[in-house]
Order: sequence, then structure tokens, then C-alpha cells
Amino acid sequence: MRTDERKEDELRPIHMEAGYVKHPEGSILITVGETKVICNASIEDRVPPFMRGQGKGWVTAEYAMLPRATQQRNIRESSKGKVSGRTMEIQRLIGRALRAVVDLEKFGERTLWVDCDVIQADGGTRTASITGAYVAMVLAFGKLVENGTIKELPIKDYLAATSVGVLSNGSEILDLCYEEDSEAQVDMNVVMTGNGEFVELQGTGEEATFSYTQLQKMLELAQSGVKELFDKQKEIMGEWTAHIDRNRNQSS
Amino acid sequence: MRTDERKEDELRPIHMEAGYVKHPEGSILITVGETKVICNASIEDRVPPFMRGQGKGWVTAEYAMLPRATQQRNIRESSKGKVSGRTMEIQRLIGRALRAVVDLEKFGERTLWVDCDVIQADGGTRTASITGAYVAMVLAFGKLVENGTIKELPIKDYLAATSVGVLSNGSEILDLCYEEDSEAQVDMNVVMTGNGEFVELQGTGEEATFSYTQLQKMLELAQSGVKELFDKQKEIMGEWTAHIDRNRNQSS
Amino acid sequence: MRTDERKEDELRPIHMEAGYVKHPEGSILITVGETKVICNASIEDRVPPFMRGQGKGWVTAEYAMLPRATQQRNIRESSKGKVSGRTMEIQRLIGRALRAVVDLEKFGERTLWVDCDVIQADGGTRTASITGAYVAMVLAFGKLVENGTIKELPIKDYLAATSVGVLSNGSEILDLCYEEDSEAQVDMNVVMTGNGEFVELQGTGEEATFSYTQLQKMLELAQSGVKELFDKQKEIMGEWTAHIDRNRNQSS
Amino acid sequence: MRTDERKEDELRPIHMEAGYVKHPEGSILITVGETKVICNASIEDRVPPFMRGQGKGWVTAEYAMLPRATQQRNIRESSKGKVSGRTMEIQRLIGRALRAVVDLEKFGERTLWVDCDVIQADGGTRTASITGAYVAMVLAFGKLVENGTIKELPIKDYLAATSVGVLSNGSEILDLCYEEDSEAQVDMNVVMTGNGEFVELQGTGEEATFSYTQLQKMLELAQSGVKELFDKQKEIMGEWTAHIDRNRNQSS
Amino acid sequence: MRTDERKEDELRPIHMEAGYVKHPEGSILITVGETKVICNASIEDRVPPFMRGQGKGWVTAEYAMLPRATQQRNIRESSKGKVSGRTMEIQRLIGRALRAVVDLEKFGERTLWVDCDVIQADGGTRTASITGAYVAMVLAFGKLVENGTIKELPIKDYLAATSVGVLSNGSEILDLCYEEDSEAQVDMNVVMTGNGEFVELQGTGEEATFSYTQLQKMLELAQSGVKELFDKQKEIMGEWTAHIDRNRNQSS
Amino acid sequence: MRTDERKEDELRPIHMEAGYVKHPEGSILITVGETKVICNASIEDRVPPFMRGQGKGWVTAEYAMLPRATQQRNIRESSKGKVSGRTMEIQRLIGRALRAVVDLEKFGERTLWVDCDVIQADGGTRTASITGAYVAMVLAFGKLVENGTIKELPIKDYLAATSVGVLSNGSEILDLCYEEDSEAQVDMNVVMTGNGEFVELQGTGEEATFSYTQLQKMLELAQSGVKELFDKQKEIMGEWTAHIDRNRNQSS
Repeated sequence: MRTDERKEDELRPIHMEAGYVKHPEGSILITVGETKVICNASIEDRVPPFMRGQGKGWVTAEYAMLPRATQQRNIRESSKGKVSGRTMEIQRLIGRALRAVVDLEKFGERTLWVDCDVIQADGGTRTASITGAYVAMVLAFGKLVENGTIKELPIKDYLAATSVGVLSNGSEILDLCYEEDSEAQVDMNVVMTGNGEFVELQGTGEEATFSYTQLQKMLELAQSGVKELFDKQKEIMGEWTAHIDRNRNQSS
Repeated sequence: MRTDERKEDELRPIHMEAGYVKHPEGSILITVGETKVICNASIEDRVPPFMRGQGKGWVTAEYAMLPRATQQRNIRESSKGKVSGRTMEIQRLIGRALRAVVDLEKFGERTLWVDCDVIQADGGTRTASITGAYVAMVLAFGKLVENGTIKELPIKDYLAATSVGVLSNGSEILDLCYEEDSEAQVDMNVVMTGNGEFVELQGTGEEATFSYTQLQKMLELAQSGVKELFDKQKEIMGEWTAHIDRNRNQSS
Repeated sequence: MRTDERKEDELRPIHMEAGYVKHPEGSILITVGETKVICNASIEDRVPPFMRGQGKGWVTAEYAMLPRATQQRNIRESSKGKVSGRTMEIQRLIGRALRAVVDLEKFGERTLWVDCDVIQADGGTRTASITGAYVAMVLAFGKLVENGTIKELPIKDYLAATSVGVLSNGSEILDLCYEEDSEAQVDMNVVMTGNGEFVELQGTGEEATFSYTQLQKMLELAQSGVKELFDKQKEIMGEWTAHIDRNRNQSS
Repeated sequence: MRTDERKEDELRPIHMEAGYVKHPEGSILITVGETKVICNASIEDRVPPFMRGQGKGWVTAEYAMLPRATQQRNIRESSKGKVSGRTMEIQRLIGRALRAVVDLEKFGERTLWVDCDVIQADGGTRTASITGAYVAMVLAFGKLVENGTIKELPIKDYLAATSVGVLSNGSEILDLCYEEDSEAQVDMNVVMTGNGEFVELQGTGEEATFSYTQLQKMLELAQSGVKELFDKQKEIMGEWTAHIDRNRNQSS
Repeated sequence: MRTDERKEDELRPIHMEAGYVKHPEGSILITVGETKVICNASIEDRVPPFMRGQGKGWVTAEYAMLPRATQQRNIRESSKGKVSGRTMEIQRLIGRALRAVVDLEKFGERTLWVDCDVIQADGGTRTASITGAYVAMVLAFGKLVENGTIKELPIKDYLAATSVGVLSNGSEILDLCYEEDSEAQVDMNVVMTGNGEFVELQGTGEEATFSYTQLQKMLELAQSGVKELFDKQKEIMGEWTAHIDRNRNQSS
Repeated sequence: MRTDERKEDELRPIHMEAGYVKHPEGSILITVGETKVICNASIEDRVPPFMRGQGKGWVTAEYAMLPRATQQRNIRESSKGKVSGRTMEIQRLIGRALRAVVDLEKFGERTLWVDCDVIQADGGTRTASITGAYVAMVLAFGKLVENGTIKELPIKDYLAATSVGVLSNGSEILDLCYEEDSEAQVDMNVVMTGNGEFVELQGTGEEATFSYTQLQKMLELAQSGVKELFDKQKEIMGEWTAHIDRNRNQSS
């Protein structure tokens, strides 16, 4: 039995609220159990220097936590004057994951920024960020379609992420909360697309290891969890779901 | 007539939600019109080096904005590697204002941090931060009283802040929204206590000046606005209001 | 009676020396009691990025102290690798104050920098900096007029600053020296123009407050002090005084 | 056929030279094809602050490249004043991987640092670093055993790493060189122990995805590659191989 | 003939003013031609970490220029967030030079800081800094002797510095001003003691070289220049000159 | 007798290996006794901003040490976020020295970077860097000649560097190893050209001084050492030696 009485293959309650902040082109407050992340997508009319002149767009992400999103207050990275390795790792992961389902050729020389700001942390902040950032990105691109800037939604497939792990008693579980994450021997983040393929797989045993059999079980849990997340995303993306389905059919 | 049809001496709608984030000792989401700020108060069991060994506590504040709290996305200060002059000015102001109504002798060698994170900005973020930070601080000290760490609330008086200004047509107004702030010739932030005294007065004419008469009118508007803010604060502070009143009577 | 036997409304002795450093377009060593500040004004033939292409100029200031300007040696901000919040606050204040009396439309796409370097500190360094920086600026613009680069002095009015405060015995005083400043409950910096209007008003009670009556008395003291400063400035600005008077008459 | 005529399951030639630098407690120059990394292990007689007073040791790694290890010269991270996200990600990975096979309880409050400095880069620098760093670490702990500082080698198992990937023609390959890495759709780094378990699995599709079947094929390739690496490591670790085998038997 | 009509072996006019700033233990304004440097010596009652517990003192220096000490305004190093290589080189040179004539054993675990701030630059700022810093240091140690903190002046000998160079016409000259320095092929800074020995010799040909014969001539010029500087220093050090002479006799 | 039984005028064994790293245009591993430095020369097709539009090239150097090049591990400068004064001083010295024998007019608007990375340190790393960097530079320019980018080798003369010093027993010695360097009273680095002239002379007495006679003896030792270094360099530069000789004859 898990600390919050969930079954091993049970996600925490998910909620997404669109338009949480008024200025961004796409804004989502995603809640996964007690974890809350604001995902704001912004469109900028230029690309970073290394992309210029190619007629293509770019998608990138930034991630941060409020100092008191956690049980102990953390020093702000702006006060320290540098971004931690953990933060960099997470924002690079979010950016790569989003780019895997975007057609960069189809929105001109623009940058889509997604800012994932963790308001309250209780485990799984990076996978909640990816799941919410995807929706914020779709809404922002939708706005470009609506105002005629681009012709079609440059989104090739669905995208969501969850975590799986192995507890010290050897059981594999889905969607670890903070308490479970602290106790787990193995922690794996899985990012998947609507067609059941992997985008990112990051499995780590800190002072521990895991077997091929454990890997298989964890991937099965992840797969079932991600499917549920897709359903939640579709609800909130409304009409854009049909656009994505059309793009998926064309590419297959 | 003002852009949002308010009268000259009319505040925007104010709302405060306590316990918005679960970890901090005191947490308030304050909404002033379209401006939203999360104010989280944390207690740390030590003081900064310059205060050690005096048996006294310290109160300090940090302020930040989400990158897309504003109409245009701002670069994160953590990415730039330094905190801007504007941010420093604001967080120093919030800290000084709070300290004016706290009895530092009465909560031991502890630091109370208040983090003010602007989720959405529409003018008046620094005054909304002070007004919300005060309540978050009272709730956090209240928790120390409840769990017996300290005997009484170390709060000497009420504290709230608002802005006043002079529009280019010469009219003085209370509580400027972003559009008004951009257009105003003079902008003044006023921090006041429950006994009607000033804690901070910061009036600035960017490429403009103001007369003694205009100053007087602005201060009257500020005074009436701050009184309304006290009423809102009292509602949400509940039983702690009585503690503060008791402290005020004792010191007078 | 004050520590240096001054009356409550008495300024410390003021002295300004023009041409103290040979390279700058305008250079003033201002001495206010024991406080000494070198104010060097430089003209640069371009404006910062946010001002480009508008055909207007910009005025900005930087402020620093020699490490041993104070009783205890301070670590250099260049060694620390960052500028303190206090320094940023002061240099933003000086820049805003100067811009209030400059017509940015009248000197082309140029930047006037004023560097205020405190050689010796005894209280009131920021107000001495503003008073000296104004004269250095006038002399630098004067040089542009003399060499035919611009047609007229882009200065709309006089500008000077002083401090006022409330001692712990409740008396209001003008132009606080360091010892008084350390002891004062309230400290207010006032920047005024030749026509008696306010440019900046920054009143602060660190762990204290002040009443409306005290504010009124402080502003009266400031007004009388600033008038004396204008006389000192006029002496050293020589012929440029007539230019400024002409500009004042035209705009009224 | 691969660019360098290798078979799909063929590693590049591996070479390790012990004692390459004279000062470190353990020093290895590892060559994997054209990739060359100096791995220097140092023992420090204290642990980082977060580990103090627990009677345990710590293992950590740093990673860097010479500016001209690559085809284009890179700017030094010391000149830029900050460590890149890529560097942080890699050095965190190396440290975590090493800690998975070390018994931190068995070498006192000491830190083992491994510095991995890439002299020449041709793909696979992070996996070559892990493979070489493991040997440098064993040699350094061996020195502590030899001089009597600790009683037994605190190493629980073997450890090595390699990369696998999917080329754009869909074929899975082992040990990608730079040219293959640039062209590949999927890149996966696999860190394994002597008992065939995973320590880290990091699979990434930059603007691409991979199926469960592809994952399985890649993991088989990785498994066979890592076995060869263990043989190379054993040759150079000499007598310490027997110590590690003894530890493995005891724990099983 | 030189640009300012000096002879080849002629120093520029030298002036030193003691007590220029009131707070430091020793304060000198040194003027060498048009070059002006404030040298402030401060005593701190502790030594840097690497010196602790040895019962010895330390002497160190910092060097900076006001932004407009030069013909073109320079960006402040505090704004850039780092100290330039040139500044570091100069302050390391000043510190080493001073330590060569100080007996670190004779003033306890204290640090003597000398801050050399260039107010106006016209060539030779580093040698003027050394010459002035020596006097400021002597005066600061003198204060420690006077107030009984230490028994005797911990100064072993005199110390002064000057520059020599080779112009493009091949002539060797003493004490280069800025114009000469810009044109010279070779520039050499020479720091010498009262007994005619060298402390530092830094000769540089930027895109040029110099012969042994030229070196000899330059060193003769330097030697004569430094003797004159000693005379100026003795005038201003007053009674401390006798103390230094006594120390010199004892050690010979 | 010296610690390693060398005579006073004897260099340590010198070895240079060309092509040590494959990517750079010129790459040398130089070994001087136990000191090992990789010197990589890179050509970049542009010059730094201050050189643009003059039709000339630029030569610059960077210097670093692996953390464990020394007996104690050093913290990386990239982790500290800033380059030390010592590193800056050394890389400025290497760059100036190289430029003294290069004709910047003869290779277009290009930058030649030399990266000197110390793999193992045992004294004399800066002089070994200069001696090796010169050869790497010649080989890199040679490549530009070979591929027809430039017509002739822009090298005016030979260049090498060594150190000399005075031990505490008063004897002058050539080419100090680390142990001697730590013990020496005086340390002097000498950079010379093939025609016997000086490029740089940096003599330093840390808490000590040296006489004119000692200077003369040290310079004689340096001269004889540098001649040997030229012979070693010529061996490895092969055919380019003839080109340099031709350039030397033309300029004389």
C-alpha cells in the first residue's frame, strides 16, 4: 500500500486550468496531486542566433521553483547568480521533449518559449511541467492559427510525461509523490507520444541499480499513465485536438 | 474618467486568499485588480551574520516576477546572473516597511523571509506586495505563537501600501493600474501604519516635477486608500487582529 | 544643539571646485562638510539600445565610493563581482533627478554620463552627488554649446538636493552628517527644482514612522536648504546661469 | 556499413594507460577510437558540507573539454564565467554512476574527486569518461588500501558505459563516433554494472522518437559492448580485480 | 626633445599630500606630472585564511581607476562584474613590491591594505601607485607605533618605482607620460629599494624587442630617477625616516 | 648541487611531440622535465572588435591547468566563475611574447589562438608554454601557407623562454623545477628572440631583492638556455625553419 493509499498503477488527481495568467499566448496551471506548476507559453518574433536565416522556428523552455515551493526555503537562483545543474538539466529536457512533436518548419522564424514555474512541489515537477507545457504550447500556436499568422498547427503528435520508480521493497510504482521519490531506489522519467513511442527515457539508480525485468515493468506502468494524461490534455485543448489528429493521420 | 471607469479616489477590487501554497508558515495570494502576487512567509532559525549574538530577530523580503507576468516576456534574473536595480530597490523597500511594525526583540534569533512573487502584473506590484506580505508575516508569526515558540505576536501596528499619482491632465488619482502608471507624470508609493503615520514615501517625477499642493492631495488619497486595505487585511487575519490591537494599545 | 553646533536649519559649509579632473567635459569636486564627491560628466556620441532611432539623448549616472571613504574599509564592488542594492538605488535616483530638468530632445542621440565617486563620506553622499552632478552636467553641455555641437543649453531649470530628518528627541533637522544620520529615526532625501517643485521625495523610517506634521516641517527645512545650494551652484556655473534663466522664462 | 567500416555491434578500439599524470592518486588516459579523456582521481580528507558528521565518504566528478578538443574551437567555460548546462548534466551523470558501485560507508569522511578532461573528442566522451573514471577511482582507492588508510576496497561491482543509437536508416548501432552521433535520430547512453544491471539509461530523440522494439535492440547492443569494456578494465586494474570479485561474492 | 620638453633623464614634477582622506590610517595623494593617485592604507585586525595562525601579518593592494581618469570614459569594473587582467596584474605587482620591504613578523596577525585609486591618468599610474602606497603604508604603520599597538616600524628599507622606455627613434627615456608610452617600443617598470637593489623588473616589447645594451641604459635611468623619488618620500615621512634608517643599519 | 643533480646552467630534458591532438591547425605536447603542456593553435577567420577593419591579424593565448596538474587538486576556474589573476597574467604574457615575432600585417583579418593547457606541472609552466606555443603557432601558419591561404610565413624570428633564479644560498640557476622555485628568493622569466634580444623580462623578488650583478649573471644563464631551446624547436619545425631564416635575413 502506498503512503497516499493509491494503487501501484494509479496516477494522482490531475487538473489543468487554462488562461491562468492573462498575458501569455498560452497559459496553464497544472496540478498533479499536490504539485502545482504554472506553464506559460510566449511567442517571440525571432530565433536565437544559431538558428537565424534558416526560415525555421525554435522551441525552448525555462524551469524554476518559487523559493518556498518546497518544505525548506531554497535560495533564489537569481540571488546566487547562477542556475543550478538540476535546473539546467530539467529545462533542457522540457525543451527537447517539446521539439520532438513540433514541426519547426511550419511557424517561421519565431521562438516559442515555455516558462514552467513550480508554485508548490510534491514530486514529479519535471513531468508535470512537460505535460502542462505541451498544452500551453498548443494553445499558443492555436492563437497564431486563429489570428492568421500561420496556416496550420505545427504539432505532429500528443506528448505527455510521467515518472515511475522502484521502492525499496522492490515494488514498481507509477507517479511518485515527494515522499515516495525520497525513498525510491530507482527513479525513471518517461516522455511519450500519442503513437506510443518514447521521446525521452531517463532512468537513474542513485546508489542502486535496476534489472531488465524491472525496466519492463516500469515502462508498462508509464505507458498506462501517459494514456490517462492524454485524455486530460484533450479535454482542455478542445478543438485543437482535431487539428492534431489530422496532422497525425497525414504523417502516418 | 479613468480608463477602467473608477473614480479618482477608488481602489481596484482587492482579494486575499490565505494558505495558497501549503509549505510556508504564512501564504497569501493577493489580487489587486489584475495584479496578482504570491506572498510566502518563511521562518528560519538563524539570523544573518551582521545580526548574530544580539538576541534579536530579522525580517527581510525578496521580490521577483514570473517572466510572463507582463505583456512582453522578460528574461529571468537567474539567467542574466544578476538581480536588477529595480528588483533590489523593491525588495529593500518591502523589508524596511515590514520592519517598521515588527518588534525585532520579541521572536529570538530568527529570520522571517517574505517572498513576493508576481504572477501577473498590472501596476502597483510593490504596494500589493507590501500589503500581502504584511498579512503573510502576521500568519507566520501567528504559527509561532500557536506552537508556543514565542509568547506574543511581535507586531506593533497595521501596515499597508498603495500608490498615488498625477495624470498628464493634472488630476491626482489613487491606485494606478499599468496603463495609468505609464501615462502618469508623477508616481508616489505610500506605506502607512494603522495609526496614520508614514513608514515610506517615495514620490518620483520621471522627466517631470510636482508641487506642494499636489503632494498634499496625493497624500489624502493615499490615506483613504490605505484605510480600506486595513479592513481587507483584518478580515483575513481573523483572531490575530485582536492581538495587534492589544499591542497597539499597550504601546500608546 | 547638534553635534557640530549647527542650528536645526543650517547647512554644512559647501564648496565646489570646477575642473578638478582634466579629461571630463564637466568635472566638479563638491565638498559638503566632510563629505567629498568627484562628479565627472562625460559625453558619449550614442544612446543605449532602448533609446536608439528616436533622435533623443539620454542622461544617466553611476555612483561609487572609494573603499576607505568610510570609517571602516568596504570591499570593492568590482571584487565582489556585483553592484550592491544600495549603489543601484542611488545611481538610479541621481539619473532620474537629472533627467527631470533636461530636455532630452535638444542634444541629439548622445548620452551624458555623470560619475559620482565619493572620496570621503560623512553623510549625505547621495544628495551631495545630485547637487554636484547637476553642475558637472551643465558644464559638459556648456562645452557642447561652445564648440557648436548643439545650439542651446538643454537645461530647463535648476536642481539641487539635500537631506532632512527627525532625531530621536523628535526635532527636525536639515542636512544630516553621518553621526546624526545613524541616530535619526527618519531620513528623507528631497530633490527640488528652481521653481520650488519636487522631483524626488524619499522618506524612510527604519523601524520607525513619521506623522504628517513632521513631514511638513521637514519639507520646509529642505526648501530653505535647497535655495542656498542654488546660490552656490550659480556662482560656479557663471555665464550658464543666464542661459538657464532664459530657458526657465521661455517655458513659463 | 558504418562510416568507419565497423559492424553494428562493434566497439571502437579501446586503450587505457595508467599513471598518465604523476600527481593524482589514480590517473588514466582512456582512448576510445579517436576520443581521448584524461581521468584523474584525487582523494580529499573532508566531505562537502551536506555530508559532514555522518562518518561517510562522497564521490563526485567534474568534466571539461580542452577548447580545441573539437573541430571548432570552443570558448573556455572559465572565460564565459559559467559552466554550461551540457557540462553540468555530464558531470552529474558521471558522479551518480560512480556512486552506484561505491560503498560510501567504507572510506571515512573523505571525498573522491574524478576529473575527466577531454583532450580530443570524437563522440562518446561522457561514456568514455565513466569507463575511465571507474578505473581511476579503483586505483585511487587501491592506494588508500595499500598505505593502510582503509582496510578494503569500497567497490561493490564493475561499472562501464557505452552509447547506442538509431541511424536515420533505422539501423541500431553500438558506440557512435561523432559523425554517426550527428546523423543519428536517437542517442542512448547506458551505464551498467558487472551483474548486468542498469545504473543509468538516458535515451533521447532530438526531434524524433523510438519504439519499444528499438529500445530492446539498443539495450542488447549496449549489454554486449559493456562486457568488452569490463575485460579491458580488468586488464589494467590488475590485482584489484580480485578484490572487486570478492566484494561481489560477499554481497550476493 | 621630449613632448613636454623634459630631458631624457628628467622626472616629471612630483608632489605628495598627506592626510588627503581623513578616515584611513595613512592617506597620500600623489601627483606625478598630470597623473594623480589617491593611496589609502588601512589596517585590518586579521589576516586572509591562508595566513592564519602563523602569528604574521600580510600586506596587500588594490588598484582601480575612476571611469573618467582617462581621455575616453571606461566602463566600471563593478558594472562589468569582473576585474580586468590589467588591474589584477597591477595590484599583484603593488602588493609584492610593498611586501619586499616589510617585516611581516613584526606587526601581528594584521592585514595592511593599500587602495590605489587613480583620479587622473597620464602614464605611469602603476609606478606612481607604488611610490605613493609605500608612504601611505609607512604612515599607517607609524600610527600603530604611536598608539603603542606595535613597538617598531616593520619597514626594512625605502621603496619607489618609476618607468623607463625606448622611443621609436631609439632613445632611452625616464618616466614616460601617456603620449610617450603610446609611442614607445619598449616599456619597463622598475621597483627599487634604498640600497639600490631591484624588487621588480618588468620589461616588455609589444611587437618589438630590446638589446642588452638598451637594457643597461634603461636601468641607469631608472636608478637615478628612483633616488629623486626617495628624497620626496623622506620629506613627507618626516620622523619615520629616522626609524627606517635605523632598521636599515641594523639589518646591514 | 641542485635537487635533481643538474649543473647550475643545465636545462631539464626537453621533448616536443607534434600533432598530439588531431583537430588544431598546430598542436604540440611540450615536456620540460616533469612539466607537460599541450599547446594547440587554432585559426579563426575574424579578429576581435578592437582590430576590425584594419586588414591586420591578431595573435592571442589562453592558459589553464588541469585541476590535478599539481600536487594538491585546484578548484576549476570555470567552477569559481572567474579566471584568477595569475592565469590572466600568464596568458597576457604568452600573447604579447608571440606577437613580438609575428608580422600581423601578413595573414589578413584572422585570429590565431594558442591554448596552453598544463597537464602536469613541475615549475616553469609559463616558459614551457611560450616555447611550445611558438612551435604550434608556426605549424598553424605553415598550414595556411600550404593550403594557399597566405603566401608566406608571417614569422619574423625565433622565440623561446626560460626561467632563471637565485637560490637562498645565493647561487644563480637556470630552469627552476617546482622545488627550486618554491625555495628561490628571486625568480625571473626571460623571453628572447633568435637575434639575442629580449621580448619580456619579468624578475620578481617576493619578500626579497636582487642586485645588478645578480641580474647580469641570471641573464647570461637565460641566454645560453634559450639557445638550446631554439635547437629543439628547429628540429620539430622542419622545413619551416628555412622560411623563418629567410624572413630574418630580409629584415636585417
